[in-house]
Amino acid sequence: MGRLVMKFGGTSVADIERIRNVARHVEREVKAGHEVAVVVSAMAGTTDRLVGWCREAAAVHDAREYDAIVASGEQVTSGLLAIVLQDMGIPARSWHGWQVSVKTDGVHGAARIAAIDASELRKRMEQGQVAVVAGFQGIGPDKRITTLGRGGSDTSAVALAAALEARCDIYTDVDGVYTTDPRIDSKARKLDRVSYEEMLEMASLGAKVLQTRSVELAMVYKVPLQVRSSFEAPDAANQNRPDGSGPGTLVCDEDSIVEQHVVSGIAYSKDEAKVSIRKVKDKPGVSASIFGPLAEADISVDMIVQNVSTDGETANITFTLARKDLRKALEVLQGLKDKVGYHELTHSVDVSKVSVVGIGMRSHAGVAAKMFKSLAEKGINIQAITTSEIKISVLIDEAYTELAVRALHSAYGLEGAN
Amino acid sequence: MGRLVMKFGGTSVADIERIRNVARHVEREVKAGHEVAVVVSAMAGTTDRLVGWCREAAAVHDAREYDAIVASGEQVTSGLLAIVLQDMGIPARSWHGWQVSVKTDGVHGAARIAAIDASELRKRMEQGQVAVVAGFQGIGPDKRITTLGRGGSDTSAVALAAALEARCDIYTDVDGVYTTDPRIDSKARKLDRVSYEEMLEMASLGAKVLQTRSVELAMVYKVPLQVRSSFEAPDAANQNRPDGSGPGTLVCDEDSIVEQHVVSGIAYSKDEAKVSIRKVKDKPGVSASIFGPLAEADISVDMIVQNVSTDGETANITFTLARKDLRKALEVLQGLKDKVGYHELTHSVDVSKVSVVGIGMRSHAGVAAKMFKSLAEKGINIQAITTSEIKISVLIDEAYTELAVRALHSAYGLEGAN
Repeated sequence: MGRLVMKFGGTSVADIERIRNVARHVEREVKAGHEVAVVVSAMAGTTDRLVGWCREAAAVHDAREYDAIVASGEQVTSGLLAIVLQDMGIPARSWHGWQVSVKTDGVHGAARIAAIDASELRKRMEQGQVAVVAGFQGIGPDKRITTLGRGGSDTSAVALAAALEARCDIYTDVDGVYTTDPRIDSKARKLDRVSYEEMLEMASLGAKVLQTRSVELAMVYKVPLQVRSSFEAPDAANQNRPDGSGPGTLVCDEDSIVEQHVVSGIAYSKDEAKVSIRKVKDKPGVSASIFGPLAEADISVDMIVQNVSTDGETANITFTLARKDLRKALEVLQGLKDKVGYHELTHSVDVSKVSVVGIGMRSHAGVAAKMFKSLAEKGINIQAITTSEIKISVLIDEAYTELAVRALHSAYGLEGAN
Repeated sequence: MGRLVMKFGGTSVADIERIRNVARHVEREVKAGHEVAVVVSAMAGTTDRLVGWCREAAAVHDAREYDAIVASGEQVTSGLLAIVLQDMGIPARSWHGWQVSVKTDGVHGAARIAAIDASELRKRMEQGQVAVVAGFQGIGPDKRITTLGRGGSDTSAVALAAALEARCDIYTDVDGVYTTDPRIDSKARKLDRVSYEEMLEMASLGAKVLQTRSVELAMVYKVPLQVRSSFEAPDAANQNRPDGSGPGTLVCDEDSIVEQHVVSGIAYSKDEAKVSIRKVKDKPGVSASIFGPLAEADISVDMIVQNVSTDGETANITFTLARKDLRKALEVLQGLKDKVGYHELTHSVDVSKVSVVGIGMRSHAGVAAKMFKSLAEKGINIQAITTSEIKISVLIDEAYTELAVRALHSAYGLEGAN
């Protein structure tokens, strides 16, 4: 049956009873003949408590110490799951990042995995021992604990699956990837399969099912990724569909998707902010003089709209960025006022980004036109647009988010049977 | 000013505010010119919570996993203290047991320190960086995290001080070692100095100020050990006495104690249980047949009284042991009934052990006689007696514990001026 990496998030391991439920999922896969590694997050609430202590200790604090503190949450869960598995008669052993070892770069707090030496794990898994690996962490070149940033356990799981040449099942509190957020549109339909590219767009556009970097990694290493629910009954959960896919959503190569939709899903994000710089002197290099300093301050800019103002001599520049970066961006821009020479700086957080994602767009015209028409029919004004090969995103008034999502979900025929 | 190891227990680091207070103690010593290493316990309550989870996961659980889980508590504290120190402008770095590294034997849950490689720590301390070391933990020959058993942070601190050739200050919730428990006798007096041997006896006889093994280690490696309070004002606390000793109690070689008392303190322990085996056939080897199996079951026996019974052919054997071992001991003894051939097995937990400790006993006669006389005057019956070179212990009815302690404290003239 081959090797399998199973990943469980914080709500799935929130207390010992839930950890027992996780162990029953593991038991099922072991009994089915898999060699299993499990990647676990910290018990829900733990990371927030640890982060809170760091902040209370000092508003600005050393990322090395932050990492050493915060990584302890996953270490506790991995030990507890190992104990529960052993108690069920399943050989198991916990592994911290430095023990595996998961080698990362030295960027504490947001490290990237450089290499995983899984030889010892592989040996023990062959002998029938389940490896319970603390997610979200590794060891840096300075021999100190690193963490991968919030949500990094997904990335840990995919990287481990790549190192073990294993399949990766991500257990979460939803049972798969949906055409849109079911809390917004009750007609949202679970996708059986979705391509890496689409999942990547959805993840970075606000769908919170998987962490963006984990999808990137899965795509690069061609790790088959399955999203499924940890709250299904462990013993009923392996009733696979006739085509061999599992009960959740399989994220895979687009070649593996037989029936392709033009549009696979509607994503939205309310984590956006908009900044407008009015009457910038329209001279060569003005964009660079604005976006250069923002990049240096580690602020990612998303949509950019630039247009010449009515006087013909100045331009208005509007762009979006993550809401959490707004304050820092405004500080940077205020510092540039004299150098760049602009008239006014305004901002707004009452915006959201709604996106249409689908691989089929590549070969189908008219997707964007349908989007703009649907929104216009509901009286929703589009403030900015960005596109890629497989997605179109628009910036709208935040109050219209749900209306826009439902309109688009219907316009592209994504509704389920119910 | 030399190197200094400062150790703070769980109540001293119970929250960020208290950790800040600890940092101020550290700051004072750094400013006084010391190269400082700090050993910290887990925040009060943390270890109990982690142990509770292990028990909930499985009543009997793998000691390796227990260690990996429980060690996380000290790791969090060490990181938090490092952050607070850095925030105060004091260079600091946290160290987990495996990072130092503190090498232990492989007895998970109750490991002994085998060696400490403090070369990296020493180098950084010379450069002015405070080393904040997670107590209670090390790394075993199997490259897995080990813990030293409850209270092991004292031992971590003393072992580190030995490796660094440093003095060791143990900060606790009392301000020193007293002639007896001040909660029992308000006339208890703080000792300026006490010898390793006396402290060792007091610790193993129930005085909870220091862990027995830490005192043993300090004695072997001649580490000067000072017990002082973490709740004194950090800036006032360095007002040393004219003789150079600190504000707490110095535990040191007896040669360093100028004015020796015959008796230094009265200790007591209510963690005792008594077992009596009546009418054992009095034949050669009968003691071995009883105490051999108890030792194999890892049960330590303390006082033993054996006397021939009235029939002249059988003996009664009475012994004491730790209350927590009673159930296991009774099981072992019941299993021996046919083989050993005894008439009756009885037990009691209504006993306590009261001890008189003092190096001066070696050269003074009459110490025991005074003890027996004092107890007799109060009508307290002695059930068993053990002695060593520097202590006499008696087993009495638990209800008389406080009365006995006060009577002895007075009889040996230990009262303070107040």
